[in-house]
Amino acid sequence: MQPKIQFGVDYYPEHWPEERWDQDFAMMAEMGIDVVRLAEFSWFKLEPADGQYDFGWLDKVLDLAAAHGIRAVLGTPTAAPPAWLIAQHPDIQPVDREGRTHYFGGRHHDCQSNPIYRDYIGRFVRAYAQHFGKNPTVVGWQVDNELGNSHGDLCYCRYCQRHFQKWLRAKYDTIENLNENWGTAFWSQGYQDFSQIQAPKMTASGDNPSALLDWQQCHSDLINDFHAFQAQIIRQYSPGRFITHNMMGFSPVVCYYDLGEQLDFASQDQYPTGHFLADQTSFRGAQCAAELDFIRSVKQQSFWVMEQQTTITGWEYMGRLPKPGQIPLWSMQSVAHGADAIVYFRWRSSALGTEQFWHGILPHSGIPGRAYREIRAFIHQTKPLLREINGTTPRAKVGIVFSYPQDYALNIQPQHPDMAYTQTLMTYYGALYRRNVAVDFIRDTADFSQYDLVIAPLQYLMTSALADRYAAYVQGGGQLVLTMRTGVKHPNNLCMTDAALPGKTLSQVLGLTVPEYDCLRDVDVVVDWAGQSFTGTHWADLIAPTTATPLATYGSEFYDGTPAITQNRFGAGTAYYVGTELTDALADQFVGQLPAVAAETITAPPRVEITHRDSATKRYYFVLNHTGETQTVPIPAAWTPYFSEAQPGQIAPYHYQVFTEAIHS
Amino acid sequence: MQPKIQFGVDYYPEHWPEERWDQDFAMMAEMGIDVVRLAEFSWFKLEPADGQYDFGWLDKVLDLAAAHGIRAVLGTPTAAPPAWLIAQHPDIQPVDREGRTHYFGGRHHDCQSNPIYRDYIGRFVRAYAQHFGKNPTVVGWQVDNELGNSHGDLCYCRYCQRHFQKWLRAKYDTIENLNENWGTAFWSQGYQDFSQIQAPKMTASGDNPSALLDWQQCHSDLINDFHAFQAQIIRQYSPGRFITHNMMGFSPVVCYYDLGEQLDFASQDQYPTGHFLADQTSFRGAQCAAELDFIRSVKQQSFWVMEQQTTITGWEYMGRLPKPGQIPLWSMQSVAHGADAIVYFRWRSSALGTEQFWHGILPHSGIPGRAYREIRAFIHQTKPLLREINGTTPRAKVGIVFSYPQDYALNIQPQHPDMAYTQTLMTYYGALYRRNVAVDFIRDTADFSQYDLVIAPLQYLMTSALADRYAAYVQGGGQLVLTMRTGVKHPNNLCMTDAALPGKTLSQVLGLTVPEYDCLRDVDVVVDWAGQSFTGTHWADLIAPTTATPLATYGSEFYDGTPAITQNRFGAGTAYYVGTELTDALADQFVGQLPAVAAETITAPPRVEITHRDSATKRYYFVLNHTGETQTVPIPAAWTPYFSEAQPGQIAPYHYQVFTEAIHS
Amino acid sequence: MQPKIQFGVDYYPEHWPEERWDQDFAMMAEMGIDVVRLAEFSWFKLEPADGQYDFGWLDKVLDLAAAHGIRAVLGTPTAAPPAWLIAQHPDIQPVDREGRTHYFGGRHHDCQSNPIYRDYIGRFVRAYAQHFGKNPTVVGWQVDNELGNSHGDLCYCRYCQRHFQKWLRAKYDTIENLNENWGTAFWSQGYQDFSQIQAPKMTASGDNPSALLDWQQCHSDLINDFHAFQAQIIRQYSPGRFITHNMMGFSPVVCYYDLGEQLDFASQDQYPTGHFLADQTSFRGAQCAAELDFIRSVKQQSFWVMEQQTTITGWEYMGRLPKPGQIPLWSMQSVAHGADAIVYFRWRSSALGTEQFWHGILPHSGIPGRAYREIRAFIHQTKPLLREINGTTPRAKVGIVFSYPQDYALNIQPQHPDMAYTQTLMTYYGALYRRNVAVDFIRDTADFSQYDLVIAPLQYLMTSALADRYAAYVQGGGQLVLTMRTGVKHPNNLCMTDAALPGKTLSQVLGLTVPEYDCLRDVDVVVDWAGQSFTGTHWADLIAPTTATPLATYGSEFYDGTPAITQNRFGAGTAYYVGTELTDALADQFVGQLPAVAAETITAPPRVEITHRDSATKRYYFVLNHTGETQTVPIPAAWTPYFSEAQPGQIAPYHYQVFTEAIHS
Repeated sequence: MQPKIQFGVDYYPEHWPEERWDQDFAMMAEMGIDVVRLAEFSWFKLEPADGQYDFGWLDKVLDLAAAHGIRAVLGTPTAAPPAWLIAQHPDIQPVDREGRTHYFGGRHHDCQSNPIYRDYIGRFVRAYAQHFGKNPTVVGWQVDNELGNSHGDLCYCRYCQRHFQKWLRAKYDTIENLNENWGTAFWSQGYQDFSQIQAPKMTASGDNPSALLDWQQCHSDLINDFHAFQAQIIRQYSPGRFITHNMMGFSPVVCYYDLGEQLDFASQDQYPTGHFLADQTSFRGAQCAAELDFIRSVKQQSFWVMEQQTTITGWEYMGRLPKPGQIPLWSMQSVAHGADAIVYFRWRSSALGTEQFWHGILPHSGIPGRAYREIRAFIHQTKPLLREINGTTPRAKVGIVFSYPQDYALNIQPQHPDMAYTQTLMTYYGALYRRNVAVDFIRDTADFSQYDLVIAPLQYLMTSALADRYAAYVQGGGQLVLTMRTGVKHPNNLCMTDAALPGKTLSQVLGLTVPEYDCLRDVDVVVDWAGQSFTGTHWADLIAPTTATPLATYGSEFYDGTPAITQNRFGAGTAYYVGTELTDALADQFVGQLPAVAAETITAPPRVEITHRDSATKRYYFVLNHTGETQTVPIPAAWTPYFSEAQPGQIAPYHYQVFTEAIHS
Repeated sequence: MQPKIQFGVDYYPEHWPEERWDQDFAMMAEMGIDVVRLAEFSWFKLEPADGQYDFGWLDKVLDLAAAHGIRAVLGTPTAAPPAWLIAQHPDIQPVDREGRTHYFGGRHHDCQSNPIYRDYIGRFVRAYAQHFGKNPTVVGWQVDNELGNSHGDLCYCRYCQRHFQKWLRAKYDTIENLNENWGTAFWSQGYQDFSQIQAPKMTASGDNPSALLDWQQCHSDLINDFHAFQAQIIRQYSPGRFITHNMMGFSPVVCYYDLGEQLDFASQDQYPTGHFLADQTSFRGAQCAAELDFIRSVKQQSFWVMEQQTTITGWEYMGRLPKPGQIPLWSMQSVAHGADAIVYFRWRSSALGTEQFWHGILPHSGIPGRAYREIRAFIHQTKPLLREINGTTPRAKVGIVFSYPQDYALNIQPQHPDMAYTQTLMTYYGALYRRNVAVDFIRDTADFSQYDLVIAPLQYLMTSALADRYAAYVQGGGQLVLTMRTGVKHPNNLCMTDAALPGKTLSQVLGLTVPEYDCLRDVDVVVDWAGQSFTGTHWADLIAPTTATPLATYGSEFYDGTPAITQNRFGAGTAYYVGTELTDALADQFVGQLPAVAAETITAPPRVEITHRDSATKRYYFVLNHTGETQTVPIPAAWTPYFSEAQPGQIAPYHYQVFTEAIHS
Repeated sequence: MQPKIQFGVDYYPEHWPEERWDQDFAMMAEMGIDVVRLAEFSWFKLEPADGQYDFGWLDKVLDLAAAHGIRAVLGTPTAAPPAWLIAQHPDIQPVDREGRTHYFGGRHHDCQSNPIYRDYIGRFVRAYAQHFGKNPTVVGWQVDNELGNSHGDLCYCRYCQRHFQKWLRAKYDTIENLNENWGTAFWSQGYQDFSQIQAPKMTASGDNPSALLDWQQCHSDLINDFHAFQAQIIRQYSPGRFITHNMMGFSPVVCYYDLGEQLDFASQDQYPTGHFLADQTSFRGAQCAAELDFIRSVKQQSFWVMEQQTTITGWEYMGRLPKPGQIPLWSMQSVAHGADAIVYFRWRSSALGTEQFWHGILPHSGIPGRAYREIRAFIHQTKPLLREINGTTPRAKVGIVFSYPQDYALNIQPQHPDMAYTQTLMTYYGALYRRNVAVDFIRDTADFSQYDLVIAPLQYLMTSALADRYAAYVQGGGQLVLTMRTGVKHPNNLCMTDAALPGKTLSQVLGLTVPEYDCLRDVDVVVDWAGQSFTGTHWADLIAPTTATPLATYGSEFYDGTPAITQNRFGAGTAYYVGTELTDALADQFVGQLPAVAAETITAPPRVEITHRDSATKRYYFVLNHTGETQTVPIPAAWTPYFSEAQPGQIAPYHYQVFTEAIHS
């Protein structure tokens, strides 16, 4: 979409003296920066008093950028409404599940359903878009910031309650219908009228899982509507500019598929050290790769990284300092999974506020250091490559189904304290990653037939339409992996009652039923596979095969000897069922023997990642060494080094090599 | 009381289509089910709008039950007031110690002191009891559900505050008297008037332990009053029916002794996997046995199990799946400790609401599986036995004092972070359980002389009357065990100041004083007993014997060599004092050498439990194998197998055998 | 100041019957008690109704004290406003960061900015001071109790918000100035007016560190003002009496330096078992010593212990029981670090309220036991010594900078989850303690030239004036130790942006810059020192030396081989820089080789502490054995035993010896 933009920085000129701006832009230009993202938290600077706009400083910034050949993405600053607005309308501040207001003083101190707040946003965004919308330096927009972050499930105020009632009325039409779909016969929870329904605040004991699932979906819709409200204004006043959004991987709040439909392309905020994780030492390469693959999958197209980590990050605490080479390596990993542009967060470490230690390319002192040098060298080396591969993506033969309703429902009832939807997905993704097999994440409405193998873990909520689509896929020759906790519920989060698990259709596809299950609290289960012993964890389905044959059997507990993992020929395809949560070795064993995987596997040393992007004529291979030692990778003869390499296949620590291979179509 | 009722199920016809009901009852009847518990959470279905009753559906259910020869226990649905009531009177919703309201959406979203709520309850229960009270299918009633569960210490609203003031006025008459009994001279807490007293909400720092103890007792009284209010209406309109209540073992909220006085018999909700425990792997046989013994002890008579676990349970998370045989085994354990009837929870796994994974006899699909088969076989085999032993109980020679005020007071000030009243009791109970010695739990007002041995741990609150009763018991030949933290306080939770611990009378009985004590934070103490080394934990009294002789001495810390456990002849009896918390091996050593225990001991392999019930002429022995292996138990010649057994004394995994022995009186 | 007072007790006659008082005083007098502290929690007893005073009982107490030759310190009871006051003005009760009121029922249920509360205090303290101010038995006063304890950062009510706005207006004058100093350009946090500023309650996400630092400093000022308000009344009505305050070591709330300026001398509440710590087993000798040294340093003069632990303590839980000898040993430790008087907490264990298990000299029974005997013997033995050394202090050649703003700022942003300002200070103090080197804690405004060595860890907030003072100190021959995270911020908590860390001046002094740093999450770093391997933790600065030479280098991570600890000649002195958090062995290595330390070291076995106080002519050495075994300490020939000792230098378990040495000046 923007073939001339490959590199950018997130820039906050309002944090620095105006006299510094020109020097900053000059340094950026010299570095190879094409674009800056601006102003996504600057409401007070832009509207310092109710209805009084001050756009002059930003005009100057854009002029200076233009003078240095740099273009701009503008953010709408609605993640940080100013103090004057909160002082006039304190009930814009959000209320949590426990009934506590969260106050001004950080960010996201707002309620996205508040109608007064909407009015203020509408007025501001209109003026803002009118003023800047046709400025030639402005190439695109970002609405708000990381929608869903620290906010999506936060607000339980009276406006949100009213909004929820309205949403439910639209969905269910009659209260009888809602009562039916929420199973309110349980615990006397029936309503006579939509007006009796509260936001699902803290109860005395227990919650209604159907109500909570609607609450999650209502909030996702609300946030999408919040985005649409602004996007529509921007589209009106800023024609020909793109709108994107900085997403956060598998963040469990907003349905990014829905959000993606509003966008020209998706973007990702990519922080490989996992800043807020207590554990800063585990290898996160697969997690990073998966999040990039997912953001590419949101629109099934290449994307931007809108915030790429540049060095040490943190708020009150910091994470680890990246090692020499890791910043370029992580940048290249983003590219390798489909990023067309890398925008670094941030230009210079902020001297102000909460994020003083969320460091930028330049340290507080402004003196260029290692981060600057590494990024500059990376930009200079790779910009031609990025231009060349702009818009390309990998060609994946394996699809993993990622579905928001499943994620919502399993967050509400995780079944086992240590089970989580995305973690279960990662057990499969991880095994594919270790074999360098390209993966698309797909909606459950996708055309499965594009893939040789579809892995759909935890298909907890099920419809007959979806079951039929899975059946048709296998019937037509597909390889399908399903797992425990499939077919448990209707989409309204009420349990299926008409057949044994996993439901009539899928029982036929899989050749089995699941009459019982064990929740492995404080214990693992042995899984025997062809004389080898593995470990299953968290869950064990007791499987009664009809036509399925066991691939692996349990080796402990009273169901010792019964099937743990099965396969079943169905039509022209094969359906696999996995009754337990896979540990890594077991996942490697299972995934490795799937025919579609075996065909795609590229062998490399541990923590060396190989991925590709395909143009019409060429495949680009990215070989990424995530270890601190030089690694040797056998390079096929048909692969040509893209950069000049002294020793192709000898990858220095935290370094990468790129190869091309002709595609014979 | 109900000799023709031995087995039941908790049934929720309102969760299922009416067309299914007849099939359900037919299946129940075939299985041997005698009774269903109904409607204890169905207020909305019975009063769908303010003052409009719909009893018709429940009439139909009762007719169908009758047609299949099944009778009914009706619950009052006051644990789940409907949305229309909450919408009209939102301050029925309870307020917690932090001042937060807990909202509609689960259950127990109510305040038991709210007078408006009481009016609604009175009106409903009157109509309900009038309508169903004389229906011949209805044999009994349950008021509310698990009173005290998630509710007892919850509400701190203004109604509860007013109620507390009233309760205190009745107890203390004058504010000066309250000031004296609450020790308000400390920290300037004196009141001029009862109206100044708040519910003991979150303070800035520290609480008044005397105030908290009254709060706990006030709440127990309130809940008993809440029960009495309903029970009185039921007795008026439903003559000849029993009232029971589903209790929860050692739940620390409501005084079950007081509640028991309102009941025809007690009932227990028995969930051996301990559903909400993080630890799902430890052996809980002794805990299960103790809770059953305690419920029998509430009224010192046989009882019902109103909810017996049938299979895997949980809310958001599940516990472990019972192993083959465990469900009948646990049922038999309930019988073995005095249950006359077993009501299984629940007939069929609910498709709706919070408890979707609190599974029933039938899975969601309704297809009978292992739980169904095991329970059906158990009912068919054991119903004649249950009829025969109806109303019998064990004859215990050991009594353990269980006292609610001690439990309340030690929850308020546990002394050591890991000390808890019921856990300390369990150290003694556990040792008796491992020797298959029958135990009654008794109030401290019980006739001690019925027992050869009375164990009274943590007699923290003491009166001279109680001290005198203990003295008289030993004087008269009894064996008495007392422990650390005895005689510390008056019943008003103020410390004793007139003598060294454990107080004048008990010092004489025990032949010692306790001038100092050590709280074993982060450390255990060695206890030496006749050359063997054991471990004491949590606490160490420094004992100054007068006439007592040491049984065991400390073997570490600066009091190395001083007495840890003593005995003292007093009159015709013996008084033991235990200065530390016993670990299992030390408890086995101590309890095993008590004469009254030695006489009652029946030796069996670990985790094989033997208990008995006595009719006028016969003792029934229940031998329960809680292990996964076949166990061999030596069977005395005088024991006759009740069921035909291929190999009496060879007990299959998770299985049981029953024997009888003639009683020669 | 009070040469005839050496020993006292905290006495609560209002907890006991009047008939007992005379016996208590007689026992105290016999024991050697000179003074009692009275009434610091007795508001209700002294003003039982609004405006009605009852001082008679306290008159009697003072008369009885006088009759036994005992004098009194009176407390003002403002840590516990009575129920009648709270009932009339419930919004005196404090509100926490989450918006929750904390209610009456413990202590500190008040807001120190509430103007109505101030009025009541003013009226009471005036009447109280008028009545008792000139009573000859009254020798001094204590305002409130442990100011800052459980209160300082507690209240976020509307009065506190208004007070904060006022304080900010006084500090910043214009809102533009505040916006600048708070860095409100970040996240659109700009204010138009001081009235828009809220108390920093719970936000939706993130806080402004500059705002939080002002909040902390505002609260410290408020509490000092709260003290001054009362102290001024007392000074007016009670001439010639001292005012002191019972401080709590390194409590991070009130600036004790500021508070000290209002006092005649400082006091400490000394509880060596660390009552509220979960860990009760670690050796706390150094921590106890440091807190005593700090309290002495508050005014750089000798001090009182106003509460000295007498035996086992706790609220709901207790700590460990002191071992025989520990109570006198801890008393002597207080003396050894500069205490002129020891007041024991408390006379007799309270039968009432929260602190029933915070035991006193006498147990609840009033029967004298071990604590009584040990303390009585200690008093009788040491009173002459205490009189002799009254007013003396150690002469320390090492100063450690302790600065409240640094503590506040690092509590707001600890950098690493396990880093804390006082803990980092303790790594240096501990190494000095293990070498028996005397230490003063000093403000950063102190005259550094008094010390051979100044250790100033974590000089996170920096001014050019302070940097210049450090430079001048080294220039003039001083030895200075600085560490990681120095010069990061301006005093307004905004980051320095003008130079590389640690700032221009200090870079010259230290001969280095710090271009990068690593936060050691879940990992330690190896530190190599002259062939030996040590461990650094939490943090690693990457050091670029200019003129500095490395003392130690990192031995792991990618910066393996680069400097970890450096020294730099600067002028006539030496500046050391420590780039990592020292573990004990590394601290011993580093501190031990500092010339000023080597000169002062006195070798003794582990956990044997040696400290001194200097009169004009004599040095008194205190040798304290904190172990459970007899320890042998080589005693120099010039040291004369103060008490008759069978074997000077053979120190019994938990015992002490005192020596004198002539000072040749």
